[in-house]
Amino acid sequence: MTDTLQTLDTPAALIERTRMQRNIERMQQRMNTLGVRFRPHVKTTKCIDVAKAQRDAGARGITVSTLKEAEQFFAAGFTDILYAVGMAPHRLAQALALRRRGCALSIITDGVESARAIAAFGRENGEAFDVLIEVDTDGHRSGIRPEEDALLAVARVLHEGGMRLAGVLTHAGSSYELDTPEALRAMAEQERAGCVHAAQRLREAGLPCAVVSVGSTPTALMAQALDGVTEVRAGVYVFFDLVMRNVGVCTEQDVALSVLTTVIGHQAEKGWAIVDAGWMAMSRDRGTQKQKRDFGYGQVCDVDGAVLEGYVLSGANQEHGILSHEGTADADIAARFPIGTRLRILPNHACATGAQFEQYHAVSPDGGVETWGRFHGW
Amino acid sequence: MTDTLQTLDTPAALIERTRMQRNIERMQQRMNTLGVRFRPHVKTTKCIDVAKAQRDAGARGITVSTLKEAEQFFAAGFTDILYAVGMAPHRLAQALALRRRGCALSIITDGVESARAIAAFGRENGEAFDVLIEVDTDGHRSGIRPEEDALLAVARVLHEGGMRLAGVLTHAGSSYELDTPEALRAMAEQERAGCVHAAQRLREAGLPCAVVSVGSTPTALMAQALDGVTEVRAGVYVFFDLVMRNVGVCTEQDVALSVLTTVIGHQAEKGWAIVDAGWMAMSRDRGTQKQKRDFGYGQVCDVDGAVLEGYVLSGANQEHGILSHEGTADADIAARFPIGTRLRILPNHACATGAQFEQYHAVSPDGGVETWGRFHGW
Repeated sequence: MTDTLQTLDTPAALIERTRMQRNIERMQQRMNTLGVRFRPHVKTTKCIDVAKAQRDAGARGITVSTLKEAEQFFAAGFTDILYAVGMAPHRLAQALALRRRGCALSIITDGVESARAIAAFGRENGEAFDVLIEVDTDGHRSGIRPEEDALLAVARVLHEGGMRLAGVLTHAGSSYELDTPEALRAMAEQERAGCVHAAQRLREAGLPCAVVSVGSTPTALMAQALDGVTEVRAGVYVFFDLVMRNVGVCTEQDVALSVLTTVIGHQAEKGWAIVDAGWMAMSRDRGTQKQKRDFGYGQVCDVDGAVLEGYVLSGANQEHGILSHEGTADADIAARFPIGTRLRILPNHACATGAQFEQYHAVSPDGGVETWGRFHGW
Repeated sequence: MTDTLQTLDTPAALIERTRMQRNIERMQQRMNTLGVRFRPHVKTTKCIDVAKAQRDAGARGITVSTLKEAEQFFAAGFTDILYAVGMAPHRLAQALALRRRGCALSIITDGVESARAIAAFGRENGEAFDVLIEVDTDGHRSGIRPEEDALLAVARVLHEGGMRLAGVLTHAGSSYELDTPEALRAMAEQERAGCVHAAQRLREAGLPCAVVSVGSTPTALMAQALDGVTEVRAGVYVFFDLVMRNVGVCTEQDVALSVLTTVIGHQAEKGWAIVDAGWMAMSRDRGTQKQKRDFGYGQVCDVDGAVLEGYVLSGANQEHGILSHEGTADADIAARFPIGTRLRILPNHACATGAQFEQYHAVSPDGGVETWGRFHGW
């Protein structure tokens, strides 16, 4: 039997293919216009089918957040892989094994101690790892600030230790906290300028720095110029979500990931419908809680994906979602959404919601549904 | 090679077996004292090994939150299964298939519409489903209030429709919002009294009601008497977590689930260590945010599980956790937790954190580590 939105078991993670393709093309075209390579972050989807669509549109290489992702994507034919989380010494053997099998895996570091561990392990094993130095351009997490002495110290440990100093990379993750075009453009420029400055310092010191890699979905889409940058990374743009809607880089109509759910009960006096998408399906991500509009655990849409304005998942237990109307209770909730009604919920955060599922169901404009695998864990 | 806490890849979900066993025995002994059957909710762990330990201690039957759990546990030899989420009509065929294979599966409903769907499907297929009516004793989610007319209406639809009216069940989930012994005892009594009242109404109307099933971890542990109750359900008690610590039914020293993590970097000026347990490992659950003590994304412990007072995961990205000292920055953070240091993080919510992993690593007092599978998805 062919799956349809009426026969799929629920909860299910749906990808609206038309929207996904539009999101992919929008980003790729913007990168082409700005004259930089685009290396999508596949941590959002952990899905080979999605990454192939990104590659078909012009992406070059991928970014991963775990070595399991690297292994899975390498097995599927992706060979140019950047592992963009600070390299833990105990994972070097796993990284080496991937390189020995032919994977062009790059790794990153932001400290002298871990740079030394990389260089020592590389020399012991006769391997010149490709290493990028993580630069901190917004203070939100990891990295060395462009002007710090540590930048050159780490670079020298790697370069003089026989590793390939491949370049610098940064991620202005604090762009997620902004919500005006002006602030986003300024953050994109701050990210660019800081990373280019770090690259210049390395080059002025006679050190190699071929790659200047920046990116987050908001800064990638809002950057006005990327002079000095060689590649951009972004992940969530492929699906978008309600957090990105609040940041201002998409609308609800761009969100390509949703959770298909079934109405399983009502508390009519309270104006509640109970659905089978709880936090196990939506994730516990409440990323819109502090943004300009709080969508609870998600925006309710009809089964075809049309937004039902004012209806949100206002609460969630493990396998129960509470669907209600914002502000005023809907006295007709039981008649509006009878038992068995199928709805879609747009997620706060596509990376977190996708991770709750073993597979996606990709929906074509003709209503056809294909199953796309995704992986989980480490 | 045998796994140890120094060789396991990180992040990893650890079960401290001694603590788990103590938690299991504490609950079972309490239920034995109160003279009720105990039916653990396996949604917390989705792990056959844990459920076997619960059964060995005296549990009778299991509770599940999805039919996938029912199928997996039935395949592992658990035959007495209560599916404690309102039955969606489209899942009746899956439930029937389980029963036809010999699974004593009970289902629940809280509305006339879905009761009619169950009875109609049952009659069409010559199957008398065992059905419990969900009772609402605290207003937090689903169920019929004990005094509502709908209780008898639903019961008659089932009974006269040829189904086996097995009993009533309730879950006082709002107990999670309390934090004093007095309030918890009162909620346990409210849960008991409401459910027993519903059972009495059915019996007075000449309807069968053999089972009176109540429970949540806090009410199960704090109930002073359970007159009229036949069975209790609870899930998270087997691991406990920081939410339960704040509710007041365990201490940090009882929490049997933790996430093993590795230090991968520092922002020494800010007093931060960066670890490889981000929200993908901890989950996005911030259940302690509004409680008496907010633990961020978790309480930091040393690799052996001893609490490092004042150190919490104060922030989390997908694969990065930010570890810091509450209140005052730790100027010695890089020396205290050098690159490669292994730590454990106690989770806010064990059900949500466990779900992020494909397996648990069960740690014995002698340091031995066993791998226990768990499942994921629907």
